[in-house]
Amino acid sequence: MIYLDNAATTYPKPECVYKRIEEASRNAFNSGRGSYKVAKEKSKIIEETREEILSLNNIYNCEVVFTPSATLALNQIIFGIDFKNGDNVYVSPFEHNAVMRPLEQLRKTMNIEIIEIPFDKITFELKKSELENLFTLKKPKAVFCSQVSNVIGLLIDYKTIFELSSKYNSFNVLDASQGYGIVKIDSNTKYSFIVFAGHKSLYAMFGIAGYIVKDGCKINQIFFGGTGADSLNLEMDDKFPFGYEVGSYNIVAIESLHESIKWLKNTDVYSHEKEITNYLIEELKKNKNLNLYVPENSDKIFGIVAFNHKNYNAKDLGMILSEDYDICIRTGYHCAPLVHKWLGTEDIGGECRVSVGYNMQIKDIDLFVKSFKTI
Amino acid sequence: MIYLDNAATTYPKPECVYKRIEEASRNAFNSGRGSYKVAKEKSKIIEETREEILSLNNIYNCEVVFTPSATLALNQIIFGIDFKNGDNVYVSPFEHNAVMRPLEQLRKTMNIEIIEIPFDKITFELKKSELENLFTLKKPKAVFCSQVSNVIGLLIDYKTIFELSSKYNSFNVLDASQGYGIVKIDSNTKYSFIVFAGHKSLYAMFGIAGYIVKDGCKINQIFFGGTGADSLNLEMDDKFPFGYEVGSYNIVAIESLHESIKWLKNTDVYSHEKEITNYLIEELKKNKNLNLYVPENSDKIFGIVAFNHKNYNAKDLGMILSEDYDICIRTGYHCAPLVHKWLGTEDIGGECRVSVGYNMQIKDIDLFVKSFKTI
Repeated sequence: MIYLDNAATTYPKPECVYKRIEEASRNAFNSGRGSYKVAKEKSKIIEETREEILSLNNIYNCEVVFTPSATLALNQIIFGIDFKNGDNVYVSPFEHNAVMRPLEQLRKTMNIEIIEIPFDKITFELKKSELENLFTLKKPKAVFCSQVSNVIGLLIDYKTIFELSSKYNSFNVLDASQGYGIVKIDSNTKYSFIVFAGHKSLYAMFGIAGYIVKDGCKINQIFFGGTGADSLNLEMDDKFPFGYEVGSYNIVAIESLHESIKWLKNTDVYSHEKEITNYLIEELKKNKNLNLYVPENSDKIFGIVAFNHKNYNAKDLGMILSEDYDICIRTGYHCAPLVHKWLGTEDIGGECRVSVGYNMQIKDIDLFVKSFKTI
Repeated sequence: MIYLDNAATTYPKPECVYKRIEEASRNAFNSGRGSYKVAKEKSKIIEETREEILSLNNIYNCEVVFTPSATLALNQIIFGIDFKNGDNVYVSPFEHNAVMRPLEQLRKTMNIEIIEIPFDKITFELKKSELENLFTLKKPKAVFCSQVSNVIGLLIDYKTIFELSSKYNSFNVLDASQGYGIVKIDSNTKYSFIVFAGHKSLYAMFGIAGYIVKDGCKINQIFFGGTGADSLNLEMDDKFPFGYEVGSYNIVAIESLHESIKWLKNTDVYSHEKEITNYLIEELKKNKNLNLYVPENSDKIFGIVAFNHKNYNAKDLGMILSEDYDICIRTGYHCAPLVHKWLGTEDIGGECRVSVGYNMQIKDIDLFVKSFKTI
């Protein structure tokens, strides 16, 4: 099997992560609750993991809130922001349904306007001055931008976008689900929240994700339940992080993250995955039957390459690759609704997406690329 | 270490569950999304696990929705019910903050009344006719009842309560977090929803829980995001289960549940844990320094025994047991706010809770009970 769907979840994880999961699952206690020794040891690991998440990008003076998934992190942020009728919300054309569907729900229930941030369809560059004008005309209350597009692998210039929107004191939400841990974030970025997903670029297991909150940012709580503290009080403490984390901690998933971050700090995953990405683009470009969704400056593409074949629609090509070659790629719309209008793939069933991982080698790309010659 | 906090999370899990976690984590793919072989195999396991959850109690014509925790399942149900101003919500005095805190939030934001279901403080019996009268005076819109109290182990007569409330077409929510998989549920019970927690009585891992929905019951969606289907549509399909499950599935946790249910079906965990519970009660009763929160008919107590010591408060006793004897018990309020008023333990820091697991033996109880002689 050649696995080329690392954007859905990275596979394989590093061996040390598997070992840690085995150990952690055999020693899984309910942390943050019991006051006996093993429960307290687990609580310490949770606090260390928060610190490690921040240290990956040298971030200080921020809180880390854990959630079971990046989707729930984004629900917590979007429904937690104190939106008012008439507010303008900006989104990049690359946003995932984890952003778009909660926002659409808000749009339906209150009068907010969702505005797409302009990008050039040829160069994939942000249209900066056009955005500046838009912000002047319609002041941003919140801005949502991905770090890396989960469909085309574009490294998005969120830093410039947030720099512009921060003049209006907007909530700036960076969805780093597709890059956190590998693709560096400048800690001077004017973000309010950064969302991360453990099982993707952080190389941990399913079940742990969360968000970083810049000091001073405030959202309403949307989940309620036991926090292990002040049990007689029917109202929850509204302090980060504990007031935003309800129910038992998934300590096994947290330990997998604790371990994967140690590994990430000692491994240059970025350089390797970038090299594989570049090679993949070059090799796919040689095939004249393929239409790549890659800008001229392919240096802006990381980890993910999207394309369509002239003779097969995406779904069929995916099936052929799976059944005849045991190659796993992802086809379709990838839960990102806006980008297909932008790419012109809305009416043709989306596209094929190939995404790389730390364990992939040049020879895997060669095998994949070779398969097209016989299709 | 003697672990007596199985009500927080069961420990150890059966060996087959650990083995399955190891295998599943080394083969973790994003199911319900990709159309390649391994992704489809994982999707099949998810559907099988839903069936198995139902089969544990011979339930038919119901849907199973997976959530990352029982707390989030209860949030989804409570905020999903179409409450109106003036609605009456009934709760047993044994409800957890996963029920009470979302309800309190509703009470603060809209005019609902939360009414406690009357139970006799001596016999721990439901006051049936008193409840019937209450229902006549204040019609129930929703009723929340635990299957097993997470504080005192009481097997609660939810069946009678739901029988009475169903005459008013109320939403009947059974919180079976503390018993599902071990303590049988009569499939003729007039429930609307049954909540389960994988990492407790189901002997699976953290990260998987959910609820059973009786055919015809309807709630609004409260979480929004990618479902792997109909990605271009910003509105989600509102059908159970997929419209209520957003983000990637925690396939490793689901596989642990898939395995633990097989084990539960072939193991008489109930009889063993009941025997250990009975022995524990008898042995603790012999110690005149202990005040047990057990009714005369101790047959109504399963898996959990609560008590206080005459010379030590709960917290101190827990510390002594942990540090001097390596015995893990839980002390305090256990995230259940109402029951302490009822037991008279509100002002004394709650109580000590001892909870049993399938792997415990009589000798573990003997060691635990003996420790008191030297304290």
